[in-house]
Amino acid sequence: MHDALRPMPAEFHVFDTTLRDGAQQEGLRLSVPDKLVIAGLLDELGVGFIEGGWPGANPNDTAFFAAMAAGQQQLLNSQLVAFGFTRRVGMKAADDPLTAALRDSRAPIACVVAKSHDRHVEQALRTTLGENLDMITDTVRHLRAEGQRVFVDCEHFFDGYRDNPGYALEAVRTAADAGAEVVVLCDTNGGMLPPGIGEIVAAAAQTGAQLGIHCHNDTGCAVANTLAAVDAGAMHVQGTINGYGERTGNADLVSVIANLELKYGWPLLPAGSLREATRLSHAIAEVTNVPPSARQPYVGLSSFAHKAGLHASAIKVDPNLYQHIDPVEVGNDMRMLVSDMAGRANIQIKGEELGFDLSDRELASRITDLVKVAEAGGYTYEAADASFELLLRRELNQLPELFSVQSWRVFTQSTHGQETDTECTVRLSAKGQSQRVVGEGNGPINALDHAVRNALVMAYPVVDRFELIDYRVRILDQGHGTDATVRVLIQTTDGRRAWTTVGVGQNIVEASWEALEEAYLYGLIHSATWQPEPSQEPVSVRV
Amino acid sequence: MHDALRPMPAEFHVFDTTLRDGAQQEGLRLSVPDKLVIAGLLDELGVGFIEGGWPGANPNDTAFFAAMAAGQQQLLNSQLVAFGFTRRVGMKAADDPLTAALRDSRAPIACVVAKSHDRHVEQALRTTLGENLDMITDTVRHLRAEGQRVFVDCEHFFDGYRDNPGYALEAVRTAADAGAEVVVLCDTNGGMLPPGIGEIVAAAAQTGAQLGIHCHNDTGCAVANTLAAVDAGAMHVQGTINGYGERTGNADLVSVIANLELKYGWPLLPAGSLREATRLSHAIAEVTNVPPSARQPYVGLSSFAHKAGLHASAIKVDPNLYQHIDPVEVGNDMRMLVSDMAGRANIQIKGEELGFDLSDRELASRITDLVKVAEAGGYTYEAADASFELLLRRELNQLPELFSVQSWRVFTQSTHGQETDTECTVRLSAKGQSQRVVGEGNGPINALDHAVRNALVMAYPVVDRFELIDYRVRILDQGHGTDATVRVLIQTTDGRRAWTTVGVGQNIVEASWEALEEAYLYGLIHSATWQPEPSQEPVSVRV
Repeated sequence: MHDALRPMPAEFHVFDTTLRDGAQQEGLRLSVPDKLVIAGLLDELGVGFIEGGWPGANPNDTAFFAAMAAGQQQLLNSQLVAFGFTRRVGMKAADDPLTAALRDSRAPIACVVAKSHDRHVEQALRTTLGENLDMITDTVRHLRAEGQRVFVDCEHFFDGYRDNPGYALEAVRTAADAGAEVVVLCDTNGGMLPPGIGEIVAAAAQTGAQLGIHCHNDTGCAVANTLAAVDAGAMHVQGTINGYGERTGNADLVSVIANLELKYGWPLLPAGSLREATRLSHAIAEVTNVPPSARQPYVGLSSFAHKAGLHASAIKVDPNLYQHIDPVEVGNDMRMLVSDMAGRANIQIKGEELGFDLSDRELASRITDLVKVAEAGGYTYEAADASFELLLRRELNQLPELFSVQSWRVFTQSTHGQETDTECTVRLSAKGQSQRVVGEGNGPINALDHAVRNALVMAYPVVDRFELIDYRVRILDQGHGTDATVRVLIQTTDGRRAWTTVGVGQNIVEASWEALEEAYLYGLIHSATWQPEPSQEPVSVRV
Repeated sequence: MHDALRPMPAEFHVFDTTLRDGAQQEGLRLSVPDKLVIAGLLDELGVGFIEGGWPGANPNDTAFFAAMAAGQQQLLNSQLVAFGFTRRVGMKAADDPLTAALRDSRAPIACVVAKSHDRHVEQALRTTLGENLDMITDTVRHLRAEGQRVFVDCEHFFDGYRDNPGYALEAVRTAADAGAEVVVLCDTNGGMLPPGIGEIVAAAAQTGAQLGIHCHNDTGCAVANTLAAVDAGAMHVQGTINGYGERTGNADLVSVIANLELKYGWPLLPAGSLREATRLSHAIAEVTNVPPSARQPYVGLSSFAHKAGLHASAIKVDPNLYQHIDPVEVGNDMRMLVSDMAGRANIQIKGEELGFDLSDRELASRITDLVKVAEAGGYTYEAADASFELLLRRELNQLPELFSVQSWRVFTQSTHGQETDTECTVRLSAKGQSQRVVGEGNGPINALDHAVRNALVMAYPVVDRFELIDYRVRILDQGHGTDATVRVLIQTTDGRRAWTTVGVGQNIVEASWEALEEAYLYGLIHSATWQPEPSQEPVSVRV
């Protein structure tokens, strides 16, 4: 622990703003269900505070806070924060509906943005420097009186300090005096470098306020700027998972936390949580549908990958000669890119997890090669464990033929002024009986699903319990238009457990079909194992 | 220029290692022609030094140096550097073929890696600490005697300094005494943070050697670490364009240069070159085929894009209130994004950019409401400028009816053992003629594209120039399986410019059709405006 310049403060806040400032990223849109899922993942990571959005101003955010208040997502580790602004110019905080919306959100904490740069007060807010200070006092006092804890974000603080240090510090003092628990210094335009951050945070610390830091990555220094502020006295760090955010993004909270835990030796998260960082970072990327960067510090797919060769033998002697931390600390893995040694061991472990004996070296190598070829072609088994199990069973001759498909057809028709119509026919045999069945749906995949379900339900009534609960599409090689390779992940449940399958192809319908067929096959194999009670309901044929 | 802690040194090196260390990135492979093109682009950017590879060890790199020596790529601003290691243990430098390969590369400069971490000497090199120092002296003296300038990279220097500062500094002194012009301190494993870098570089500066810095991004601090070394005395910075490199990558030289030029006020590149940075960064990404990050500092597509509605009115008053530099300085642009957080001011600015007068408040409010309703339904206009323009034209009654679609049908069929077949028919009228045309494709969207193109090409031969270059699918409400709403973004080019359109629906084919129809409509409107020369080629009907 070489890197901490001071002991860990008695109180230290990890404040996540993925759902508010992260959502400002170009192309990123979060629905209310998306936000609820991400809030659950952030709580699992164990951040202290989750800023959920701006209630009152954004209907989506208002709905998110209502859903949280209704208990749709329980938080075990984190506290919910509602974002807002100081009251409007020339109004009382008690009369401002946006201030009331903060309280109505039922979040225990309000984080209120205040201006601290004189030019922004005069040119953007178009009011006097004194009125801006009154707005801070009035808003903080009102919210405190209404029972909320209050943090104040000082917007454009660093640029403001460089233009007019006295006024910027006055804004900090005013917020603290009015009852703000933390005053967060924001590098809103992101133009700072670490020495400037350190110097100005140290100056602000002279006010006696408890300080936080909020950085953007416009100079490529958001993480380092955040640490420079901590070194200079900040006890509260704001950031977003995977560095999502407007322009170049916010400080990546994953890197900030990992640096503070592993380099400073400060235990910020609940014990063991950091070891979930890679999984949680990737799970959140699945929800945002922003492809994760393989080069992301700590949690990227490539972050502990070594091109073998020179290093390989030395790495075997002592991996710590070639890695700055043990990747297990953040739930990541060292990978050797040329040799298959990491690969085979992984496959053996994974096989054992699923109940297959892969101790035979030659067998494990053959399966490792199969996985490599498939992954090079666009398959991924990290999420699709059901497809991985089917691959294993195929290689081990443990794949029962529960049904076989002769052909399928999908047909979509749109006529001006009429609703689009989609129909699918499937010809398959199961338990010795050949059938030709039709299904319709609101799209080709939905129609395929209905048709295959209708075809199988006679032979296997249990499929009536199967439900497709998630369907994801990723274009693998961008830049080739509709010729691109497509990967489809389908998640299916039988009400007791869920499983994920993968399909790949240039034709999205074909790739979806592959994932769908595997979803039914996997579900049937495991239904047989579990010996479900015979269904008492009459078999319904949905067409 | 707040950020320079000292005056610019009289001599300062910008050293690019994209072609050597950058090429270690997972999935990145550079052919000799690729390397020649990138060398030309780096020379255009005006970096002082281009490290081209490791001649003798890597046949591809040997061929690259031969091609450079043969004048296949002239360098106007940069000097070529050959990379290698100190001579082998127990051999004379004069007898080591890899040392000879450095001279044979005909590069004027050799950059030689030396070990400076005692544990690496003993465990990886398996020799004595004394022999390692002899290897440094012997190799540097030999290369100098053969007429090359020599830089020495001290591998694992920072970890080495922390384990055994005396030996690490002895390696620096040995290299400088033997005639190395610059001794480059390498954070090979990338685990350092800026204060540690600053402290250790300052200690190394006591040797009197001229120092360089080489950082990796494993803590997310490569750029800040590089600047910390410069602040502490380094006069030579190594990095790669776009931060390519092994694991998390090297320091992004684009950010390092932009920070030093624009924040420190140090003119490192030839005058005007920094204004080419965005173009050159993207051109190099085209060659490496690594999709550029929209969030990359300074040169990313999103790096000066603003979304928040509340900023928009103030941006109109003074853009510098909301950006840390003028994007023109790096050849980038400010962009206003249209989004559901957008207010009327955003829409007005965006409309003006597209050449529409939206100064009428009532009109602008009506369009803002339309955008909000559409975005609530899943549309997004921040990427889909073309669909936004069509929305504006529809509302302003400026949308010509260039064609009208009566109906379309798509059909996908898969029979066991045969290739999947997809076919589409479209019925539409254009210029008074009704047509029914068929197209096939490798998937339903591809088939739709072929059919609509075939149907329009008679009336509008220009569509033959249109090409779909990107197709993205996003499932909007995860967790509803195949019933989910789907958003499709399609990017189309006519060879001169590209435009993006959006479609939304529960049926992926229908959503794709909507985006496709808008893509053709927008392209045709702008083709008419630009009055292209009539095509002399015979119209080809592709089926």
